[in-house]
Amino acid sequence: MQDNTIADRMAPYLQLQIYAKIPVLIQGFPNFPPPQFLRQAIAEEALTESLQYTQTAGHPRLMKAASDFFEKHMGIKVDIAKEIVASSGAQSVLACVFQALLEPNDEVICFDPAFDFYRPLIEFQGAKHVGVPLKPSQLNSKASILNRFENGKIKFSKEDEWHLDYDYIESRLNARTKMIILNSPQNPIGKVFSVEELDRLADILDKHPQVIVCEDAAYHHVVFGGYQPFSYPRCITHPKLKSKTLCVTSAGKMFSATGLRIGFAMGDEKYIRGRKSAQTYLNFCLNPVLQTATAKCLEQTFDGQYFTEIRDLYIEQSTMLLKGLLESRFNLHFWVPQGGYFLVTDISDVDISEKYFKDDQDGHQLTKDFAFAYYIANEVGVVCIPCSPYFENKELGSRFVRWAICMTTETIQDACNRLK
Amino acid sequence: MQDNTIADRMAPYLQLQIYAKIPVLIQGFPNFPPPQFLRQAIAEEALTESLQYTQTAGHPRLMKAASDFFEKHMGIKVDIAKEIVASSGAQSVLACVFQALLEPNDEVICFDPAFDFYRPLIEFQGAKHVGVPLKPSQLNSKASILNRFENGKIKFSKEDEWHLDYDYIESRLNARTKMIILNSPQNPIGKVFSVEELDRLADILDKHPQVIVCEDAAYHHVVFGGYQPFSYPRCITHPKLKSKTLCVTSAGKMFSATGLRIGFAMGDEKYIRGRKSAQTYLNFCLNPVLQTATAKCLEQTFDGQYFTEIRDLYIEQSTMLLKGLLESRFNLHFWVPQGGYFLVTDISDVDISEKYFKDDQDGHQLTKDFAFAYYIANEVGVVCIPCSPYFENKELGSRFVRWAICMTTETIQDACNRLK
Ligand SMILES: Cc1ncc(COP(=O)(O)O)c(C=O)c1O
Ligand SMILES: Cc1ncc(COP(=O)(O)O)c(C=O)c1O
Repeated sequence: MQDNTIADRMAPYLQLQIYAKIPVLIQGFPNFPPPQFLRQAIAEEALTESLQYTQTAGHPRLMKAASDFFEKHMGIKVDIAKEIVASSGAQSVLACVFQALLEPNDEVICFDPAFDFYRPLIEFQGAKHVGVPLKPSQLNSKASILNRFENGKIKFSKEDEWHLDYDYIESRLNARTKMIILNSPQNPIGKVFSVEELDRLADILDKHPQVIVCEDAAYHHVVFGGYQPFSYPRCITHPKLKSKTLCVTSAGKMFSATGLRIGFAMGDEKYIRGRKSAQTYLNFCLNPVLQTATAKCLEQTFDGQYFTEIRDLYIEQSTMLLKGLLESRFNLHFWVPQGGYFLVTDISDVDISEKYFKDDQDGHQLTKDFAFAYYIANEVGVVCIPCSPYFENKELGSRFVRWAICMTTETIQDACNRLK
Repeated sequence: MQDNTIADRMAPYLQLQIYAKIPVLIQGFPNFPPPQFLRQAIAEEALTESLQYTQTAGHPRLMKAASDFFEKHMGIKVDIAKEIVASSGAQSVLACVFQALLEPNDEVICFDPAFDFYRPLIEFQGAKHVGVPLKPSQLNSKASILNRFENGKIKFSKEDEWHLDYDYIESRLNARTKMIILNSPQNPIGKVFSVEELDRLADILDKHPQVIVCEDAAYHHVVFGGYQPFSYPRCITHPKLKSKTLCVTSAGKMFSATGLRIGFAMGDEKYIRGRKSAQTYLNFCLNPVLQTATAKCLEQTFDGQYFTEIRDLYIEQSTMLLKGLLESRFNLHFWVPQGGYFLVTDISDVDISEKYFKDDQDGHQLTKDFAFAYYIANEVGVVCIPCSPYFENKELGSRFVRWAICMTTETIQDACNRLK
């Protein structure tokens, strides 16, 4: 009898590529404690808030707090009854979005590299993942990056862009294109799309009015280089894009508590109504205690100061890590991230012993990014994440590894010392 | 331009049939407070437990507590690493099960009536819902039910069975049948499948070894009529069925806190491994605070006393409600539930004014169950749920309404007084 216990669409995703090889659960979350006010809020709400089913689209207090917060910080006004819905993390927001909107054979444009969880969610719906490469404009050598330090601060520069190939995007758009996913700040490369880039994209999308823009703004509070948290070039506020944008955010990332599992989708009613039904069936509703606690936190951080502090912390940590990597014994090349939790380096010029190119478990040949991550973990005791899983272009992707900046000063200092 | 903002598979499920018509959010949850130890556990864990990503399959402490608990109370031993996974409520457990196991065009056998959320989840995967009727053996008149009271307690009886038509089941099984869903105690009718019924089903399924049994045991602690909580005829412990069973349970229902949003799937590794991946992509992971708090509650209720008390409470409430309905001014017919949160009555012989057969909002003609529910809500101030949404056979289903027994004594007394 044939094995019938895995649906075909599921089979390629039985094991996470990354976690299968790297001996850590995951690295993409803050290793400093979440804010005490969040812990306190959950503890208080646990004693008083209802613990029964609540509105499937989200607890009214959370919907109100989130829409007030986003109105103040993003300048958009959402209709609580129709234009916003909460799910258990941006992850489940995305799962519900794709479930609600994608038909089999619809095409979804993703940039390449991209967050590695879009593709399976797209394919689960029978839809097609269409990759559009982002191209690193140049390798930034140690010297060129060192030049950009001023008073201990790093200057952001156009040199760091990963570029869009607009002609290529146009060539991939067609009547079957249902959606384009735009993640800014971007995981893994830390790119923040510029106004010019969004304008240009908007012009292109004008010719394909059926295309929905899914803006993954999971890191929208962590923007560097002169932007304020939440306030940077974004689709949901772009004059031409906003009416076709469904914006995804994550309270867990906002409050440095990735385990919180509260995320939001916002956008026109026509994108949200299907999302709501998908949620009803995929989750039914979210825990009301977590929702009212999150509402409290949004109320308490309404003035935005908390997020400015967190953003400033991330700038410090990324600068510290960048310096450490510059001073390391490895010949890396760099991009200065413009936002997000991560920093990507090019490892093309690093020599790695042959033995690390062999998989411990099955003897398979590994790509250079995995070999490097193995090597660094074993010989140096520092964890980085191989980037090829984020790339459709595996050859390009295997040139890169991702380092987390959402770490305590001690952790980063320790890593820098080990890398020296 | 055609509306492309709702996937075809989603379109029929944009609005919940029931909630669209009945002016209450939902009625299927306890209106008494959840146990204080649960509130306390969440409050404590909120202050100490990590709030970052945790294992996607479930927090190790929860996996341990749940498997210990189920070993003691169900007599099954699960391998924590391979045979159990937690999701956010039984609802999301089911969503992940179907996502992982069902191929397009697979057939899934459901009993009719059934929990109304199976069908959309099946259809979302492009699979086919195949209904197999359960037949009420006879109408139980007020007199016949009154005869069964003894010292204020109601006797359970074979008369209350809703029967399986084994020939019909056999006729629907074929090579495309991937799964059969068996929900015991059953929502809405309160049926608990007997050993004989499971034996007979097992014999039939012997001939179709590819069929997976999905046992929805959301109400496995609420069993009446001589059974002990968790310990009644079930697939996951049945000698012939257990190896092909994937068992779904709900910590929210167990702790009378439907908003908790923790549920489990247990079964052979080959059913669980795909489930785990589905979960990774649909939810990533669950909130660790809720998980360790739930673990604590399972540890604290390990001796089972809490569940015996809750079960006894439900027996009292169902007896009280049954009496109230017997003494009501309405000519209802009855089944005595064998478990679960609900009690179903036949309303065929009730006269309802014509005006209640018209939908307020759109003037549509309503079925009798909806008319009755409207009528009772408006004229009597009592909420019951129309049953046709639970039935594929709408004509049969519109003869029934569902009443909730998971209510405080005051609520039930008040309802009984109003119904007099
Ligand atoms: C780009 C991006 N989107 C979404 C998510 C998921 O966020 P959440 O933890 O809220 O589910 C992540 C998590 O790493 C991410 O990097
Ligand atoms: C039969 C059945 N299964 C599953 C569920 C979902 O349970 P949970 O609240 O744990 O998601 C319900 C809820 O009403 C139910 O009646």
